[in-house]
Amino acid sequence: MSVITARHIGFAGIEEGSLGNKTWADPGASRAEKRDAKRRAVLMAGARLFNDQGYEQTSLEDIAKALSITKRTIYYYVQSKEEILFGCQQLGLEFLGETLERCYDKRLPVLDRIRLLISRYCAWVCTDLGACAPLVREVSLSSDRRRELRAGRARLDHLLRDMIREGMETGEIRECDPRLMASAIFGALNWIPYWNRSDAPSAPDQIAEAYVMMITSGLVPGADCAQGH
Amino acid sequence: MSVITARHIGFAGIEEGSLGNKTWADPGASRAEKRDAKRRAVLMAGARLFNDQGYEQTSLEDIAKALSITKRTIYYYVQSKEEILFGCQQLGLEFLGETLERCYDKRLPVLDRIRLLISRYCAWVCTDLGACAPLVREVSLSSDRRRELRAGRARLDHLLRDMIREGMETGEIRECDPRLMASAIFGALNWIPYWNRSDAPSAPDQIAEAYVMMITSGLVPGADCAQGH
Repeated sequence: MSVITARHIGFAGIEEGSLGNKTWADPGASRAEKRDAKRRAVLMAGARLFNDQGYEQTSLEDIAKALSITKRTIYYYVQSKEEILFGCQQLGLEFLGETLERCYDKRLPVLDRIRLLISRYCAWVCTDLGACAPLVREVSLSSDRRRELRAGRARLDHLLRDMIREGMETGEIRECDPRLMASAIFGALNWIPYWNRSDAPSAPDQIAEAYVMMITSGLVPGADCAQGH
Repeated sequence: MSVITARHIGFAGIEEGSLGNKTWADPGASRAEKRDAKRRAVLMAGARLFNDQGYEQTSLEDIAKALSITKRTIYYYVQSKEEILFGCQQLGLEFLGETLERCYDKRLPVLDRIRLLISRYCAWVCTDLGACAPLVREVSLSSDRRRELRAGRARLDHLLRDMIREGMETGEIRECDPRLMASAIFGALNWIPYWNRSDAPSAPDQIAEAYVMMITSGLVPGADCAQGH
């Protein structure tokens, strides 16, 4: 399977409606650039169908049809449905790349880093490509792919747990179970594609802001003040 | 489809490992009671297989085999896989029945009612029967069943939104968007079956307590106190 690197991904190009993106049509683009742009279009068409009609209910043929190409052509870009799902996850890690780097940088305030991870992850699961990982169950995948998907998730999960732990040490975050807190936060975020895929979706920024408020300050105003904080 | 009523459900009977439950074996049980107990066993075996290996990957034949009965026998209890999924959801509403009644009773403090709904819903999704609704995607269902599943979810969602709105009016809950808050809370809860189905699961009480803490008070101690709360 070919590996997608940051060089190949113009992130403007993974937004909605960019199937006919510039690179594809650009006469100045190299053959490799055009191939990567087309592969990305295949991932996007696949993700969209998985999200709309289900992973099991979608065949490579359906995806080819959605792109008006033959099944033979699609095999030039991907070998299987699983590769599409896995490719989307790789794009997700690329999308979050800069965010992850900043999250590992302990010179930045830990709460800022947590807020950043939440809002960027929220933006990602609100795209077609980002929605398909939470929407497709692991049981649909071969054990190899399942391991890779789990490893990607575990990496993010551990990053968030580590930041929560760090905040507990500095007193910026209350005593809590970082594993359960990370599960609640990623749970809230991973569930977004289950309810926000409508004709009038809530904007990712609006969702992220509301979620960050609840996660950091809670629903009850001044819950702690009586205890002398 | 037969309708399950509270009369038919001994809730001790829907916990793990209760497939050979008392009613089934009780020589004093009526024919109808025995049939209901067996139907519940069919739902439980179905839910367990959906959760472990996926809804699409499970046939009625697999469920019959897991119960050591014939496919012909299983049709005496359910007509389809969908009926199992839907039956589980009905059991969920029964399981939450008393909780829902208390949530509608405005004489009780609204925060207590919200806490109660969170911890009971958490207990439900931690059972095999309760896990299958969040784990099976709506796209797997016929449009009729999808509508019913959505209606059940919407009922819970609106109950929580209404309680949040009520708390905002009394000042017990800060100004927020009740729709987004309810989506974050149910998201965190619905995601539990995705990570807590292991050999050593976290206890529902422990999860609920941690989630309630985050949802009500947030991760940041005394976040509001500086603002004069």
